[in-house]
Amino acid sequence: MTKDQFLLPEDVTYLDGNSLGPLPKTVADRVMRTLQDEWGQMVIGGWNRAGWMAQPGILGDRLGRLIGAPKHTVVLGDTLSVKVYQALASALDMRPDRRIVLSDNGNFPTDLYMADGLIKTLDRGHELKVVEPETVADAIDETVAVLMLTHVDYRTGRMHDMVELTAKAHAAGAVVIWDLAHSAGAVPVDLTACQAEFAIGCTYKYLNGGPGAPAFIYVRPDLADHINPALAGWLGHDAPFAFEQNYRPAQGITRMRVGTPPVIQMAALEASMDIWDQVNMSDIRAQSIALSELFIQLVEASCPQLTLASPRDPEKRGSQVSFRFDHGYAAMQALIAAGVTGDFRAPDIMRFGFAPLYNDKADVKRAVAILADILENRIWDQPKFMVKAAVT
Amino acid sequence: MTKDQFLLPEDVTYLDGNSLGPLPKTVADRVMRTLQDEWGQMVIGGWNRAGWMAQPGILGDRLGRLIGAPKHTVVLGDTLSVKVYQALASALDMRPDRRIVLSDNGNFPTDLYMADGLIKTLDRGHELKVVEPETVADAIDETVAVLMLTHVDYRTGRMHDMVELTAKAHAAGAVVIWDLAHSAGAVPVDLTACQAEFAIGCTYKYLNGGPGAPAFIYVRPDLADHINPALAGWLGHDAPFAFEQNYRPAQGITRMRVGTPPVIQMAALEASMDIWDQVNMSDIRAQSIALSELFIQLVEASCPQLTLASPRDPEKRGSQVSFRFDHGYAAMQALIAAGVTGDFRAPDIMRFGFAPLYNDKADVKRAVAILADILENRIWDQPKFMVKAAVT
Repeated sequence: MTKDQFLLPEDVTYLDGNSLGPLPKTVADRVMRTLQDEWGQMVIGGWNRAGWMAQPGILGDRLGRLIGAPKHTVVLGDTLSVKVYQALASALDMRPDRRIVLSDNGNFPTDLYMADGLIKTLDRGHELKVVEPETVADAIDETVAVLMLTHVDYRTGRMHDMVELTAKAHAAGAVVIWDLAHSAGAVPVDLTACQAEFAIGCTYKYLNGGPGAPAFIYVRPDLADHINPALAGWLGHDAPFAFEQNYRPAQGITRMRVGTPPVIQMAALEASMDIWDQVNMSDIRAQSIALSELFIQLVEASCPQLTLASPRDPEKRGSQVSFRFDHGYAAMQALIAAGVTGDFRAPDIMRFGFAPLYNDKADVKRAVAILADILENRIWDQPKFMVKAAVT
Repeated sequence: MTKDQFLLPEDVTYLDGNSLGPLPKTVADRVMRTLQDEWGQMVIGGWNRAGWMAQPGILGDRLGRLIGAPKHTVVLGDTLSVKVYQALASALDMRPDRRIVLSDNGNFPTDLYMADGLIKTLDRGHELKVVEPETVADAIDETVAVLMLTHVDYRTGRMHDMVELTAKAHAAGAVVIWDLAHSAGAVPVDLTACQAEFAIGCTYKYLNGGPGAPAFIYVRPDLADHINPALAGWLGHDAPFAFEQNYRPAQGITRMRVGTPPVIQMAALEASMDIWDQVNMSDIRAQSIALSELFIQLVEASCPQLTLASPRDPEKRGSQVSFRFDHGYAAMQALIAAGVTGDFRAPDIMRFGFAPLYNDKADVKRAVAILADILENRIWDQPKFMVKAAVT
């Protein structure tokens, strides 16, 4: 039972760990130590004495275990958007004669935006080709330079087959980038088996690293010494403290580091990784499927107004379930007001994330009971639930 | 007297705020509030209810006052390296017919590395021309697309004349980027008077935002709506939560935001900005000059082994003083061991930063007395002081 390890808001059933995971109880002490004992007492000495400088690699190794990445192939830093740019720039550099970046409209928008920004910056006639998720496999051909996909769709939870699509892309000579934002800590991932060249993700969703926690990037170990970093920052330099005038990339994954790492955010993430170090992803997956199956069953039995937007087959679904409802925005606001936190994604998707570290069957039953009441009694149909906040 | 507002290590005279500022005493409580009351109690709701999403702009406005930037022209996020890339990519895009990026060898290496990475990525024949700081003015001509300089040299504290060089660059048709890493909170800066197109900087040095605190970027207000962001992240989108497939930049400085902001780091920075809100940069500058003048006078009187590396004229110096010494590395290690923290930069520079918020004349006198003793008695000439740590 790990629910005790989290501080959850009282009287709230929290089903939004796919957006922001809750606070592990040990985070406060761990962050205090970094503030008071490290920053306060060591000041600049903290970079060595408290190990701040090594932390992006150490945390990368710990996280790597959850996604099937060998040691020294994952590093933390920046935001997911920046990591997309790094991965895609290096990937395109590996296929200079091709011009297509293939993605799908289930990719998180920032991945597409960053690709668009890079393509405009390159100004060499690249094209971002965005297809329906179901047609990705058919769209792979020998014009594709890079296949860039989010493994688990942020809207519906639909999950791509990483191994199959990667193999197909490789057969066509394309480089592959997987965004694991909704996968790391949610579903088992085996990057070694998959053989994709790059993977990226964030740590503030299922990994509970806290708001603004750093992103991660994986580079396949045989490639790491050969890629050209577009974001050639000093902490990716082979000798950052020699202050040489010319850039020489560090060996291995370290070259994907850019600037000064976010020490305080990393302290919070470290406390969360203490929990994850004890976790077996197969167990998490089994519990996640049990919760999402129960949720679908109960919603379909008691909320006829809603239509399942997620794949019915649990093998094709991540650790979230989404339903469509025309009044989904208002219904979600009413649900949140009643003590069940999910979220809404335009135009009509009500999203519910399941995180076995702190969600159990009682949560599922309570959430559905309250949801059914809101729908049956049209509690959502009040002006106060219609007003859109800046962030949903 | 603001020294009370900082937690400084006992028995240490801290003269390294030019590298990492010390801990403001209010940071711990402020960060705890973000962890326990915001993340813990609001979880995802913190983005709106705790104002996390607006914080990069709010902090930007507060910081802007210290560098002569109007409201809504500065935004926080990412690292300085990433901000260099953003500024330079947009700047080069503004001068498509020119190919020279002019900088000097007093620029911090990561600025040069990031420029190099961008130039390689663009692959359109740009050239990074790095001259001696003294010859920058003469090197400005009509081939220069972008003049990109660090205002205060990280090694020597030598300070460029921002207004004069910007005017000269503009007369030649070049775009100007100033790196204010060693200026913000150290010396008065007036970006409005200077008229440079871009400025960037970090907040963990004189601004005491903590290890890994976010960087900032300024864009001249008349330009902000017209520049093309190379790093086209979702939080720079005009409607990030509409999850549109195509990128449309937000109005104004917001388009320079990229990914999810580092909420915990921003909480620490906010506590530090509470101190800075009360500060007049002219007062800071007067006290800084008094401290650095005293330091030079005392070192030259009692440490004949050292040679001044900084400009003697305080008007041409930032808020640090550097001396050259062949055994500077070992001498700095001995000094740190004796309770005076400065730092060392290859090949032979001993650096001392002066931050009037927490440094006073007694600090200067103590530091020089201990330094003189170390030099006179060759205390530095011990094997334990020769071993180089990974980070100095």
